[in-house]
Amino acid sequence: MKLFYSPTSPYVRKCLVCAHEIGLIERLSLAPATPHPVQRDRALVAINPLGKLPTLVTDEGTVLYDSRVICEYLDSLAADSLTEGRLIPAAGTARWAVLVNQSLADGILDAAVLTRYETAVRPEALRWDAWVAGQLDKVSCGIADLERRADDWSGRVDLGTVSIACALSYVDFRYPSRDWPALDWRRGAPKTSAWFARFKERPSMRATEPPAA
Amino acid sequence: MKLFYSPTSPYVRKCLVCAHEIGLIERLSLAPATPHPVQRDRALVAINPLGKLPTLVTDEGTVLYDSRVICEYLDSLAADSLTEGRLIPAAGTARWAVLVNQSLADGILDAAVLTRYETAVRPEALRWDAWVAGQLDKVSCGIADLERRADDWSGRVDLGTVSIACALSYVDFRYPSRDWPALDWRRGAPKTSAWFARFKERPSMRATEPPAA
Repeated sequence: MKLFYSPTSPYVRKCLVCAHEIGLIERLSLAPATPHPVQRDRALVAINPLGKLPTLVTDEGTVLYDSRVICEYLDSLAADSLTEGRLIPAAGTARWAVLVNQSLADGILDAAVLTRYETAVRPEALRWDAWVAGQLDKVSCGIADLERRADDWSGRVDLGTVSIACALSYVDFRYPSRDWPALDWRRGAPKTSAWFARFKERPSMRATEPPAA
Repeated sequence: MKLFYSPTSPYVRKCLVCAHEIGLIERLSLAPATPHPVQRDRALVAINPLGKLPTLVTDEGTVLYDSRVICEYLDSLAADSLTEGRLIPAAGTARWAVLVNQSLADGILDAAVLTRYETAVRPEALRWDAWVAGQLDKVSCGIADLERRADDWSGRVDLGTVSIACALSYVDFRYPSRDWPALDWRRGAPKTSAWFARFKERPSMRATEPPAA
């Protein structure tokens, strides 16, 4: 399978962490791409018209995106070889809990990435402070919700917790709290912070760390 | 079940069209909300920290979001009563095809919604033409891809085609081609256009049309 990727994309990282956790990483070959919301990567657009990462081409030549679809596909492959350890419960309450945690983590990421576009990609004269404030409020409210529910999810390794870890890691990566005091998320989230300190030491997370910002 | 909604949200509409198609619409009570990326709806944020629509509260009190999770949940409920007519194939190639079409439609929608924020919400002096051009290119490339593959998907009623129809309808709703010649998508997409002309007459689509823009 070929995964179009960049080393700093948190959505790519979700897929890579999943592949590590379920023992499929050796089956992925990585193809670098350079997506950008304005200067679109035409080679990538030819595969995925949205021009976004991650994009997977399966061994049968099927093109899959986005990260949610790819993670579910990888998990389905693992189902053939694992008796336990799947990252997405097949059905029922446990499935919805995992998928909602993924939605929340993806929503935090979407807001953090839009903030990045606003503060690092958009010409300085065209930036809108209220937009950034609105996006960062999503990040803060999202993490506060995780903290309230931490006892429910923090004991598991699943697509929800993988997504949460990738989102928190991206916030740390792009918004060091010395530069962004409003994103010093650990202060108000001791349970989530303690969980993340452990989770980010998993081999799957260590192997997928982005290069220094 | 309670669905937080607004009549103009295309992501809400995906869920409503699904509920109509699988015979569950009577079980949804609708609760209006007013999400906004800058002036956040605090009542909604208290339920869903991202402050986004759609958000569903199940009969058991579980909060589900986003539209993908809600549509899959509704489809799982229908599975108990339908022998056919489910909107998401349970597994295999057919499932990935439907989910990728949803990803593509959601990506078109995301780009169209970001364009809307740029051109109708952001103060005029802070707008960036190149950003709008990049987003609209995602819309155009996405529809071109649908057109190339139209023979594969246009015969079905599933979550993929529901998502495609809601995306195309939103493009028409927000960007009438008289005002946005670049989004006169029908010219280059005769198969998709013919399909959409039929699909939008389905009772599920007629019952969920947004109010006049």
